Amino acid sequence: MEFNIICNSANNRARVGELKTPHGTFETPIFMPVGTLGSVKAVDPVDLNGAGAKIILANTYHLYLRPGHKIIEQLGGLHQFMGWSGPILTDSGGFQVYSLARLRSITQDGVTFQSHIDGSRHFIGPEEAIDIQKALGADIIMAFDECVSYPADYEYVMESVKLTSLWARRSRDRLDNNGNQAIFGIVQGGMYPDLREKSASELVSMDFDGYALGGLSVGESSQTRINIIESTVGLLPSHKPVYLMGVGTPEDLVESISQGVDMFDCVMPTRNARNGTLFTSRGKLTIKNARFVDDARPIDESCTCYTCSNFSRAYLRHLFMSREILAYRLNTIHNIHYYTNLMAQLRLAIKESRLDIFKKEFYKNQKSRL
Amino acid sequence: MEFNIICNSANNRARVGELKTPHGTFETPIFMPVGTLGSVKAVDPVDLNGAGAKIILANTYHLYLRPGHKIIEQLGGLHQFMGWSGPILTDSGGFQVYSLARLRSITQDGVTFQSHIDGSRHFIGPEEAIDIQKALGADIIMAFDECVSYPADYEYVMESVKLTSLWARRSRDRLDNNGNQAIFGIVQGGMYPDLREKSASELVSMDFDGYALGGLSVGESSQTRINIIESTVGLLPSHKPVYLMGVGTPEDLVESISQGVDMFDCVMPTRNARNGTLFTSRGKLTIKNARFVDDARPIDESCTCYTCSNFSRAYLRHLFMSREILAYRLNTIHNIHYYTNLMAQLRLAIKESRLDIFKKEFYKNQKSRL
Repeated sequence: MEFNIICNSANNRARVGELKTPHGTFETPIFMPVGTLGSVKAVDPVDLNGAGAKIILANTYHLYLRPGHKIIEQLGGLHQFMGWSGPILTDSGGFQVYSLARLRSITQDGVTFQSHIDGSRHFIGPEEAIDIQKALGADIIMAFDECVSYPADYEYVMESVKLTSLWARRSRDRLDNNGNQAIFGIVQGGMYPDLREKSASELVSMDFDGYALGGLSVGESSQTRINIIESTVGLLPSHKPVYLMGVGTPEDLVESISQGVDMFDCVMPTRNARNGTLFTSRGKLTIKNARFVDDARPIDESCTCYTCSNFSRAYLRHLFMSREILAYRLNTIHNIHYYTNLMAQLRLAIKESRLDIFKKEFYKNQKSRL
Repeated sequence: MEFNIICNSANNRARVGELKTPHGTFETPIFMPVGTLGSVKAVDPVDLNGAGAKIILANTYHLYLRPGHKIIEQLGGLHQFMGWSGPILTDSGGFQVYSLARLRSITQDGVTFQSHIDGSRHFIGPEEAIDIQKALGADIIMAFDECVSYPADYEYVMESVKLTSLWARRSRDRLDNNGNQAIFGIVQGGMYPDLREKSASELVSMDFDGYALGGLSVGESSQTRINIIESTVGLLPSHKPVYLMGVGTPEDLVESISQGVDMFDCVMPTRNARNGTLFTSRGKLTIKNARFVDDARPIDESCTCYTCSNFSRAYLRHLFMSREILAYRLNTIHNIHYYTNLMAQLRLAIKESRLDIFKKEFYKNQKSRL
């Protein structure tokens, strides 16, 4: 993996970068659609390309349980398995072990847990998390970390940061024999700025290929999140990519980019699509609203996605109300395109030194009525 | 609409025809995927084209209830509404009124019923059925008929045939002012050959653009069905297309084509796809079977569809077991392609005077193990 800064904003930390991976090169800031089980829900690789996705995320925990990383490895790796030839980032499984699995017990070795599917017992530590991600063959993999819940005691978070640093080093050491996969460390530390600082400095000393901010979007206020992002990004080396995990709304992305974040993933565009909530240049649209029953216009008249190029709000409302499977795909294509297009606009605004103007227009348009 | 016979089989009634409609020309025998609510479940028009579909069927009863034929008319008709530029055939709603709606009461005027969705009361008679189909704008529309259940008393079916003939004439009269839509009459008569004969001769005297066989695949034996098809097709004018409604398995299609049937529709390929049952040149395959867990081969190694060109059995099994939405689309594309490709092979076999050889090979291959 190689990361080069193309352009820095004069007024804030926003920047445009170029990230080279074994499966392709893309510009940052970038949004990664979430393909939990080796499928970005409701769409396929052709749809993803058409919607402007350049890199996707897949979940280690889910693929470890189903169908199993060894089966995917045997079938040629995750790219081959799911038919996606572009870059893939896999998370380490840490977050899902804490949010989905049952009866966890944590030691310095790792986490013993029960599958959320069938209750079977499993163990994942840093070595196992890296071995699974090596088998999956993602371009960028993540160190194994502990995600603390929110709110959490200072003492608990302090111990957790120690454990995450220990696991980060073991994760990094486990990968050393492999030159094709990049590995990112994950900064934890809850909402305590000094613990975030401690976590960041320990990870930076290990010289990862990139750094992620974990443990955010867990219930904290938007202002707390922005403060943590601002203080943490300042501690990370500016020549490495910064990845904000699991965040967020279009507004979150716009704000975080100004703080120097380069990469994002979130289920919001895909999950909202399946719930009938569509993003547009003028705010969100709830497709089941009765006023769309005979509306011949596309979701967003300024959108060039496949869905907006071919189908009316009336048809999409009809599909959604009738629970037709096609609704989920067409809505998902649109929402992914909205996110990738927003990032493209942000990159252009940074390059053209007009990010502040873009942000003002963005917020004004979001408040206008569709 | 224009129908020309291109080629007749020497040994039986099988023939290849060419059917011209305002939205395109296709060869018969043809299979029409079912797009009940203005969407062939799980796929879109690009998928349908890719899978070789040339004409689709949509359901009058369903579109009348949701979103309503007047909304579709206002939005430019069903082709425009769903983004399908090829030919469409709509059924008359007769079958669904009997199979889905509640609290029916039948008079000579038509049928009063309650919606299966919300219990609201509605009335559809022959005039209403035609008006709805005119609003939808299908290329081929169907006369309104009464579908009797099976088994049914001779006397009941006799009265029903009278009613169907009465409604057929009123359906035909209602369309007269429209030159762009073709209309087919529907032969009823249950499993009574003499009533089928009476129904057929009355409809033929009304000079429809084509004739359909209704009320089959309702629980009767395969042999009974073949006998009814054989005797009825012989009563219909050979220069008009013959459409066997709601049938059926690949074997049903192969047998019916030998009896002179030109058109088919059935939910089997699409519904089976969503249940994980896939058609192949060597019989059916249940994708959830554990033996496919690491099977790198496509569903059917001789298939050229999008799904088989890009995805393995192992991946399709994983998607299906994980209930990923993409499973339904990929399986549906394959099964529709199987049906359209089977029909293409049958047309070629008829043209090359080797239908009997084709049938022998077809049955032999169906019995071979995947």
